[in-house]
Amino acid sequence: MSNLGNVRTDLAIEAHEYITQTIKQQDLDGVEIEEFDYDDIKVKRVKINNLKAAEQMGKEMGNYVTLEIPTLRQKNSALEEKVSQVFAKELNFMVNQIMTKDKYSVLIVGLGNWNVTPDALGPKVVENLLITRHLKELMPENISDEEYCTVCAIAPGVLGITGIETSEIIESIVGKIQPDLVIAVDALAARNITRLNTTIQIADTGIHPGSGVGNKRKGITKEILGIPVIAIGVPTVVDAVTLTNDTIDMVIDTLIKSVGKGGQFYQILKELDREEKQQLIKEVLGENLGPLIVSPKEIDRLMIDMGEILAGGINAALHPVIGFADATKHLY
Amino acid sequence: MSNLGNVRTDLAIEAHEYITQTIKQQDLDGVEIEEFDYDDIKVKRVKINNLKAAEQMGKEMGNYVTLEIPTLRQKNSALEEKVSQVFAKELNFMVNQIMTKDKYSVLIVGLGNWNVTPDALGPKVVENLLITRHLKELMPENISDEEYCTVCAIAPGVLGITGIETSEIIESIVGKIQPDLVIAVDALAARNITRLNTTIQIADTGIHPGSGVGNKRKGITKEILGIPVIAIGVPTVVDAVTLTNDTIDMVIDTLIKSVGKGGQFYQILKELDREEKQQLIKEVLGENLGPLIVSPKEIDRLMIDMGEILAGGINAALHPVIGFADATKHLY
Amino acid sequence: MSNLGNVRTDLAIEAHEYITQTIKQQDLDGVEIEEFDYDDIKVKRVKINNLKAAEQMGKEMGNYVTLEIPTLRQKNSALEEKVSQVFAKELNFMVNQIMTKDKYSVLIVGLGNWNVTPDALGPKVVENLLITRHLKELMPENISDEEYCTVCAIAPGVLGITGIETSEIIESIVGKIQPDLVIAVDALAARNITRLNTTIQIADTGIHPGSGVGNKRKGITKEILGIPVIAIGVPTVVDAVTLTNDTIDMVIDTLIKSVGKGGQFYQILKELDREEKQQLIKEVLGENLGPLIVSPKEIDRLMIDMGEILAGGINAALHPVIGFADATKHLY
Amino acid sequence: MSNLGNVRTDLAIEAHEYITQTIKQQDLDGVEIEEFDYDDIKVKRVKINNLKAAEQMGKEMGNYVTLEIPTLRQKNSALEEKVSQVFAKELNFMVNQIMTKDKYSVLIVGLGNWNVTPDALGPKVVENLLITRHLKELMPENISDEEYCTVCAIAPGVLGITGIETSEIIESIVGKIQPDLVIAVDALAARNITRLNTTIQIADTGIHPGSGVGNKRKGITKEILGIPVIAIGVPTVVDAVTLTNDTIDMVIDTLIKSVGKGGQFYQILKELDREEKQQLIKEVLGENLGPLIVSPKEIDRLMIDMGEILAGGINAALHPVIGFADATKHLY
Repeated sequence: MSNLGNVRTDLAIEAHEYITQTIKQQDLDGVEIEEFDYDDIKVKRVKINNLKAAEQMGKEMGNYVTLEIPTLRQKNSALEEKVSQVFAKELNFMVNQIMTKDKYSVLIVGLGNWNVTPDALGPKVVENLLITRHLKELMPENISDEEYCTVCAIAPGVLGITGIETSEIIESIVGKIQPDLVIAVDALAARNITRLNTTIQIADTGIHPGSGVGNKRKGITKEILGIPVIAIGVPTVVDAVTLTNDTIDMVIDTLIKSVGKGGQFYQILKELDREEKQQLIKEVLGENLGPLIVSPKEIDRLMIDMGEILAGGINAALHPVIGFADATKHLY
Repeated sequence: MSNLGNVRTDLAIEAHEYITQTIKQQDLDGVEIEEFDYDDIKVKRVKINNLKAAEQMGKEMGNYVTLEIPTLRQKNSALEEKVSQVFAKELNFMVNQIMTKDKYSVLIVGLGNWNVTPDALGPKVVENLLITRHLKELMPENISDEEYCTVCAIAPGVLGITGIETSEIIESIVGKIQPDLVIAVDALAARNITRLNTTIQIADTGIHPGSGVGNKRKGITKEILGIPVIAIGVPTVVDAVTLTNDTIDMVIDTLIKSVGKGGQFYQILKELDREEKQQLIKEVLGENLGPLIVSPKEIDRLMIDMGEILAGGINAALHPVIGFADATKHLY
Repeated sequence: MSNLGNVRTDLAIEAHEYITQTIKQQDLDGVEIEEFDYDDIKVKRVKINNLKAAEQMGKEMGNYVTLEIPTLRQKNSALEEKVSQVFAKELNFMVNQIMTKDKYSVLIVGLGNWNVTPDALGPKVVENLLITRHLKELMPENISDEEYCTVCAIAPGVLGITGIETSEIIESIVGKIQPDLVIAVDALAARNITRLNTTIQIADTGIHPGSGVGNKRKGITKEILGIPVIAIGVPTVVDAVTLTNDTIDMVIDTLIKSVGKGGQFYQILKELDREEKQQLIKEVLGENLGPLIVSPKEIDRLMIDMGEILAGGINAALHPVIGFADATKHLY
Repeated sequence: MSNLGNVRTDLAIEAHEYITQTIKQQDLDGVEIEEFDYDDIKVKRVKINNLKAAEQMGKEMGNYVTLEIPTLRQKNSALEEKVSQVFAKELNFMVNQIMTKDKYSVLIVGLGNWNVTPDALGPKVVENLLITRHLKELMPENISDEEYCTVCAIAPGVLGITGIETSEIIESIVGKIQPDLVIAVDALAARNITRLNTTIQIADTGIHPGSGVGNKRKGITKEILGIPVIAIGVPTVVDAVTLTNDTIDMVIDTLIKSVGKGGQFYQILKELDREEKQQLIKEVLGENLGPLIVSPKEIDRLMIDMGEILAGGINAALHPVIGFADATKHLY
């Protein structure tokens, strides 16, 4: 998760927006952006080219593709199907950039806790995947490489339930079964509430410390695993502390605009920002009662839908036999 | 739900706190309060005696008992058992005040949507109740009135799923099966985040329009049903609008304390309060995407626990054969 | 449920098969049968015309349409879509035969227990329906009768959980909201294991005592409710007693074929049939431990799929705006 | 799973019963049996001492402890608590026999598929365990070895979902985190229907190929992992083929008793046994539709209860700070 002053975000586009607003210029050196639309789906490809840009944005160098679909929370099967297809194409494109050999095997990792609704994205995706590794071993003659990629999957749980760093579990399984690529799926904490269940990010940079909702402190990256890692993330909650913090900032910003910089009031506003903000957050949220999250009321349904969108898209992206158009028809 | 200026709350104690703070006197004419503790459980009995007090508090005249257990969200079976017992005693006391005849029958209504985790309290309670009405009809000789109360239950769903006002469903069933008392269980929207899954309210005033998380616009009251209605409620979510609104108020209050009343800045603060607050809330929360809720991250588990606490307590309160001490041992 | 000697079945086609086999003639007087196929879906329309045939078959006079899809348990989205469409057409046809007026309102009843996986068909269907009654009341100008039928729904639970006869709950709600038609959805007990989650029956005769998995002893019929009742049923379990009983019968039949009728051994076989069968069943199944059911291992997934097939089909059958081809795209 | 002629069972006591009945002697050389009762709980400790006995019983040499509680399926919290305590004591005893050093770490493996109700025992247990490994690493001063054992856990899923042999996953994690002991929890296929959710087996022999409900073909044993493996199993389903097969056998046995050995009928019965049985099973169960299972109707609730009994017992058996009497009060 990036940490830009108080701004923490898992999404490259949010980090980019924040930076360009702050430095008041539209372009950031070392960052290439490509944008296009499929109907209601806005696709943004962000490429971070050099270390300086990476540092500024608090993101690793690499490729980040984001799908933004503001209307996705409305129940609309046709739109969901379309999103699954566009997601499949973008994922397929990224995989093909990375995998140079014809034939490769993929381990899909469904991160998160299946007992915490908004954190269960990874496990829900894993349930719906077309898994072939064991079938290829049992009856290779029936499952040709031209039609089916070698895919296996695991939903390892979270540190609080297993007592084992998720990264350690993945590392040991990768060591054992030797896949060529890891695709990790995770629920993200968003900064902006409008992004909840409306944004999908695909990144070829892996998953870095501190990301996500739970306690996943060690990365799942090429450095650690020795093979490329594509990370798929969807913001499903906003931390209540983030929401409260942002609200306070916005009030202060609005007041500063009213009174102008300089002067006694400006000073008071700045001091509040500095000294009393933590205290205010505590008063609003109470203390010591564990994490509070903000989510859409219909989160249970939204998680099921998103799980199917992503699983369908991954199936179509990896297995040549499934056309993109049939992404959501091949859930398992 | 009370509407005290911007303050909306389902809890009588929150309404009372707000009023006494505002009018700066500890006692409110027409309101009697009794308080005592069982270990970590604070019990408050609030009685609203006259219409003026009822109007001031935005609550119906009647009795409200609140159990506050700040530590209830920590997993602690012994405490949960204790809460179930104290709740059973308080409910039993209230039922006995209302039911003058020896033998009576009860319809328990589990309000809420079983597919929306924090709204599923009612259905979860219904699942765990000891239901006897059909057994008493089939084999009355085995289920004596001295040991078992006549209890039946329904979880009617919510308007969005049924297309029927919940109140109409209850009214028609009450007309058909003629119980002597209705006990309605519902998840509430809290004002204060520390109350989430830590507070239980029992009231003999029924359920009034606008309460709760969902769309339950018509009351479930003695006026409508013709029989007494006890309402059991537990705050399980805070509306994100409430949280944002409260945060803004608190920032402004803090600033007003800093600058004192009067003066130009005070005026600005007051104007912001009036004019720009709605705009700020929209900026923070986005628009038109349906209700957002704030809840503890572990809400799935908390709902299961609370469902068992209440069901155990209701069983012990109604059936003489179950001692209060065994409340949670008789879940069904 | 029919009771033909030892043969009990909820399905008209099973009753018909049994009778015609027993009386050794293909046609039964008073029964009309029409059959056709859509690809892998076999549709049978059975019409019982007179009381004698009804008595022979142990079924009410009326129309029974059955969809048989032997391969439906294999995960196949395209087939599921097709089934939903054919089901929608057949249901639409039956509704149109019954509803003579242009504009009518429908109450859909989802029978069964949402906490018992193979019995949760009714509640699962209700969750996915397009419900319009409340919307039509709130904003009739936006929801025209030409596009949307007036639909409401209830999942009343089962006697063991509510203590109230399901029939009484439906009766009281029908009395209150006055719909023109009831459509009741229920999981059935099958006789034949190959029918599990592969057969759908639509009948215009309502639901009669003793049917289904749970304790639903009072009918949901035109006689009781005063309005027509269409029953939709899917076999989801076989009672273990039925399976054991059938197995014993089949062993004995096979032996009788071997030894021929008459003779001492034939007598022994007949006596076993009569005297020791109950004892054998008890030895195989044990005693007093409550109902045992036989179901496919993947029953959790199958129930979700069937819930969507039926809900999609009902939506398309009732709301003119949804084309049959889009049945499964309009789940809610 | 043992394969004694047609008898296949995961339970040592069933294998022993079958063998001693067949060879018509109460004792089997090389098998020691110890029996005692705690109220309604029958405990049997079976020790297989030599290879010949192991071969006869189709079980590995080692210790098998079985708890039989015929009334456990009735909802009874007090009994469940008692079972949890007795189970904790027996498990603790077995662990202490194996672990000679004072301080050791345990990996608990919850086998099975969390989406198939009767197979989800392992994952359900894992959810409720007190996990300490990560806490001991983070704050060793707060979690003393005198009070808490080092415990971690994983629910790796099943081959059909992961595409990876469960044994391979465990092997790789064991290699990485180096625990001293593995405890594997699994749902078993029972032979006898009265055992469903009423029997618990603890064995120090690990899990051997072919056991359980799912596709778990490679063992989880000391030979493979290099550390001791305790297996905890509960029968939760009977395969429908087993039930049908047993029913046929019982009919034939009954008939053989009637006609006596020798003679023409005896020959017919024997031939049926040999030739037509498979055909009969196919006729009863249908073909090619995937596994059918027999389970109690209330299986959803039974699995939750058993998950808590085992998790509570494991917690009390491993962590010295939790007394056996408090087993079920320390679920997490």
